[in-house]
Amino acid sequence: MKSKITLLKLGGSVITKKDEASTPNFQAITRLAKEICRAEASPIIIVHGGGSYGHPTARTYRIAEGFKDKRQLLGFSETHEAMVSLNRLVVKALVDCGLPAFGIAPSSFAVTRQRRIQVFEDEPLKQALKIGLVPVLYGDAVLDYEQGFAILSGDQIIAVLAVRMNAERLIMGADVDGLYTADPKVDPSAHLISHLALKDLQQLRVKIGEAQVPDVTGGMLGKVSELMLPIEHGVQTIIVNALKQDNIYKALKGEEVVGTKITKT
Amino acid sequence: MKSKITLLKLGGSVITKKDEASTPNFQAITRLAKEICRAEASPIIIVHGGGSYGHPTARTYRIAEGFKDKRQLLGFSETHEAMVSLNRLVVKALVDCGLPAFGIAPSSFAVTRQRRIQVFEDEPLKQALKIGLVPVLYGDAVLDYEQGFAILSGDQIIAVLAVRMNAERLIMGADVDGLYTADPKVDPSAHLISHLALKDLQQLRVKIGEAQVPDVTGGMLGKVSELMLPIEHGVQTIIVNALKQDNIYKALKGEEVVGTKITKT
Repeated sequence: MKSKITLLKLGGSVITKKDEASTPNFQAITRLAKEICRAEASPIIIVHGGGSYGHPTARTYRIAEGFKDKRQLLGFSETHEAMVSLNRLVVKALVDCGLPAFGIAPSSFAVTRQRRIQVFEDEPLKQALKIGLVPVLYGDAVLDYEQGFAILSGDQIIAVLAVRMNAERLIMGADVDGLYTADPKVDPSAHLISHLALKDLQQLRVKIGEAQVPDVTGGMLGKVSELMLPIEHGVQTIIVNALKQDNIYKALKGEEVVGTKITKT
Repeated sequence: MKSKITLLKLGGSVITKKDEASTPNFQAITRLAKEICRAEASPIIIVHGGGSYGHPTARTYRIAEGFKDKRQLLGFSETHEAMVSLNRLVVKALVDCGLPAFGIAPSSFAVTRQRRIQVFEDEPLKQALKIGLVPVLYGDAVLDYEQGFAILSGDQIIAVLAVRMNAERLIMGADVDGLYTADPKVDPSAHLISHLALKDLQQLRVKIGEAQVPDVTGGMLGKVSELMLPIEHGVQTIIVNALKQDNIYKALKGEEVVGTKITKT
């Protein structure tokens, strides 16, 4: 039987301004915090991405490629600190509307091996849920057994959490309406897929891989790849556009909302 | 055989202004960061306290007493966020003088049971040391299996680290010169003890317990109690006044410095 845990991803491109380095989207963060507070979904774990906060520094220092040069160490520090700073804004917005949000740093409890989670100490998170705190995690620069360090995406974190915590549902708040039959920017016949089964996702994955330019965490291809495991595990999954007012609220309430639902069969 | 790891504690009353709530002592933080950078002691782990940052909020919400009331949850969040904010200042000062400092959040990797460390995931920290990062931890509000949450002092953290990492030495940067034969504030015959053996420490512990007003982390009594285990374990331990220029530098360099050395025999 599934737990009643809801996992909510807030995409980095939703909570930061994509085209401006280190610029949080305060308006989106505040609105989303209010939607989350109003929906009163509990227990809930929130994971957010880095967007324009984490990615530029990570790119400059080539953090995702691993440790090759001492000079990268300051970049590792800077990338992590940028993410902490963004996390504090999200936590503050939630606290301001009355939710006891608790920032948890992935680099403090997780170690990857070749970019995949290997050590994942979730006891603090589990205990936090037990007393009613709302854990807020994020994509982070983490230590890696093979390559020294790596970028651990919020998508990988939330997928692993969904399986480990036996979550009931996973809501992916993105900056697009969901998955399309083709890239809507180049193909005018592209349309939103409102419902998708796991077997179709594998095919779509190839298409997306061909169409998208990957960012440091793998972009939409990375997102979709990470989703395979929780969906296989039976976690109800939906991708919605978190830039549009009330979509996250509706998704949390289980109301009808434009987006892409993905189910096991 | 001992590793070459140095552990350095920066007391909360050193890096914050004791009498002003949430006021960092920027001048002390910057000076200490420069002393640490100049000393080039490596590998090194730094742990700092909360001082006027963490303690007032922790006191207001009675975080140390554990979870009794839902309203405390926002206080838990606030206490942790205050410590993150202080940690970021310390990390930034170190990065500014060229040290790749890496903030690690105790509440993200540790869980206590009745205020004593039970879960302590040190893999990220160990991997960080391997590639040359300087972990910077801090006293924190953490989850507790028995009482919901608790205050985990920087002193407990550094003592546990000293033993687990088989550290060579432990430098306690305090706001006093070291341990005294009596409370110097009330007894004019009190004098600084420059060297102390473990067996004498136990006796002194009783005296201190009678003289001091405990703070949320146990104050000097807590500090001395925590030191017993690493000293028993053979870790070279010294308490020095970190408010005095160059004391931390000298201690890191192994030079003569006013303070209290404590040895196993």
